[in-house]
Amino acid sequence: MKISVERSALLKAVSQAQSVVERRNTIPILANVLIEAEGNDVSFRATDLDIEVVDKAPAQVERPGATTVSATTLHEIVRKLPDGALVSLTDDGTSGRLAVEAGRSNFSLATLPKEDFPVMASSEYQSNFSAPAAVLRRLFDKSKFAISTEETRYYLNGVYMHVADSDGGKVLRCVATDGHRLARIDADLPNGAADMPGVIVPRKTVAELRKLLDDDEMQIAVSVSETKVRFATPDITLTSKVIDGTFPDYTRVIPQGNTRKLEVDAGEFAKAVDRVATVSSERSRAVKLSLHEDRLILSVNAPDSGAAEEELAVAYGDEPLEIGFNAKYLLEIAGQVDRENAVFMFNSAGDPTLMREGNDHSAVYVVMPMRV
Amino acid sequence: MKISVERSALLKAVSQAQSVVERRNTIPILANVLIEAEGNDVSFRATDLDIEVVDKAPAQVERPGATTVSATTLHEIVRKLPDGALVSLTDDGTSGRLAVEAGRSNFSLATLPKEDFPVMASSEYQSNFSAPAAVLRRLFDKSKFAISTEETRYYLNGVYMHVADSDGGKVLRCVATDGHRLARIDADLPNGAADMPGVIVPRKTVAELRKLLDDDEMQIAVSVSETKVRFATPDITLTSKVIDGTFPDYTRVIPQGNTRKLEVDAGEFAKAVDRVATVSSERSRAVKLSLHEDRLILSVNAPDSGAAEEELAVAYGDEPLEIGFNAKYLLEIAGQVDRENAVFMFNSAGDPTLMREGNDHSAVYVVMPMRV
Repeated sequence: MKISVERSALLKAVSQAQSVVERRNTIPILANVLIEAEGNDVSFRATDLDIEVVDKAPAQVERPGATTVSATTLHEIVRKLPDGALVSLTDDGTSGRLAVEAGRSNFSLATLPKEDFPVMASSEYQSNFSAPAAVLRRLFDKSKFAISTEETRYYLNGVYMHVADSDGGKVLRCVATDGHRLARIDADLPNGAADMPGVIVPRKTVAELRKLLDDDEMQIAVSVSETKVRFATPDITLTSKVIDGTFPDYTRVIPQGNTRKLEVDAGEFAKAVDRVATVSSERSRAVKLSLHEDRLILSVNAPDSGAAEEELAVAYGDEPLEIGFNAKYLLEIAGQVDRENAVFMFNSAGDPTLMREGNDHSAVYVVMPMRV
Repeated sequence: MKISVERSALLKAVSQAQSVVERRNTIPILANVLIEAEGNDVSFRATDLDIEVVDKAPAQVERPGATTVSATTLHEIVRKLPDGALVSLTDDGTSGRLAVEAGRSNFSLATLPKEDFPVMASSEYQSNFSAPAAVLRRLFDKSKFAISTEETRYYLNGVYMHVADSDGGKVLRCVATDGHRLARIDADLPNGAADMPGVIVPRKTVAELRKLLDDDEMQIAVSVSETKVRFATPDITLTSKVIDGTFPDYTRVIPQGNTRKLEVDAGEFAKAVDRVATVSSERSRAVKLSLHEDRLILSVNAPDSGAAEEELAVAYGDEPLEIGFNAKYLLEIAGQVDRENAVFMFNSAGDPTLMREGNDHSAVYVVMPMRV
């Protein structure tokens, strides 16, 4: 292999690949990135055996070929090279070394045979469709905070992406929950997605996927099977196993009969919750909401450290209510509101509470109360 | 006590105080800040028993008084209050609570008796002088990187500030070393500093002091005794015990007879060192410098991961030389050069090397070589 690549294109491709590589590897080849040069491209492939990313960059390919080197070392080197440099990668196939050259810098990196690199088996995908990056970004960004970190309930360690029935017909839906709070985000069903099987996209895949979604205008090609999901732009292909489990029936958790409606400026609400939570004990983080006509009093009472109380002007017309929540959960769901007021729908102090943005029913959050 | 303080002045004062407080305290009162209101000021005093900081803010004092509350909780609350808010602090002296109020936010914080707060004993200072913030900043900023972290050699865990003889007469000098590298920084001797005893200013004090030195024009009042050092601005007084030990005779470490002179662009040099060090093993971090006429070759050879080599155009006219250094140490001293070229003075591959900025002899660095 002998190729030349512009440094910034190389950096972009290697960055994306190396971020999939796990820092601590017992299998040496998994610390490496597979470099394949052919035609007018070089591709960088990295995997942790659950996720595989392939990132392409334009290259002058003098001699096609393939090899593997340490992903982090290559990334560090390219990162430290001056912008605008032309980087050449040369592997003579016998020395067990890849030469990386740019200007007066020369590196020689230990390689491992390309044959040892575990390329993810290709599969048949049951469903193939495309969706704008902005739509996927909203689906995952607004749901991922609720992903569970409890490894025993492994089937909650991801975002459940599936086709669901909504009032206006079928939608593409992402749901995440950890049992304490839940996020359910809907988007218009893309053409060709109707027969998509529901899949649980793992937390790490959601994080890696995020890097493909920065460009609003980009169309993302999505492929889904029972066991795998793939997201692709023209340059980057991210393939991931999905979590092998059954996502619980979340619809039973979403309250239908909550009638006590509170409308509040989400930003003001979040700041007030954050302030009163300062005195709460780190363990409980309980905040009490006391609802009166058009008045909300947030309060915390922590015998050891002190007490806090703050009043907000709100829209509320129902019977007075006192209800407690974990401050962290309130802050997280209030942080999802980006356009309108937060609308909370309560039932009683012991029942799950629903939140949405204004009258938009395409993003719904549920949070369990706690005794205060 | 009953006072009102403008939020931003309060935040500044409380920030400085709370940063001295150790995060983990077995003595509860040490987690607290002592608030004292009198005249037109409120002061916040915090200590870890080695360092004490007192920070003043202008206040409307309706009822003078004093109490103590958790430094971090008070800081967090003030930080989260909206900018421009007027904050009132009220303590009725009997409830064991301090009321913190701003707009519609009300906090009540647990207090501990002011009598329990360990105020540092005042002392006689042998030497009192004043120095511009910019001068002290240079003395400590350029030396602190060399402070040792080895607790067994506790007398190296700080910057040795003392009066020394230089070619041009007496100077105010800061020296730090960990046995591998050394920094010696000189400044003009301020009026009244001539009889200052040499003191070892502890690492944490150096870090806290840094916050007093941002304003170039500020004059800092410095007081020094055998056991304590004090730095003061009109608003902030930082008092610290000094390290009770003898700083070693560093003058013997600074080579006098090094004649092989290398002159190099410090920025280019640092970048090149950083690049070739990428392939070095994390343990050794050894970089080899090969000096030829007007050429410097930096190289690393790590059998496991690979090799790297980079050539720089330099000014060098002596016999060829090969010498090895820890990349981290080279990067740190090169990072100190902010105006001119870095000038290295070598003797042999086994002898300490000296570095300075151009022809400026007021900042001198020594670094020990390592075998490569």
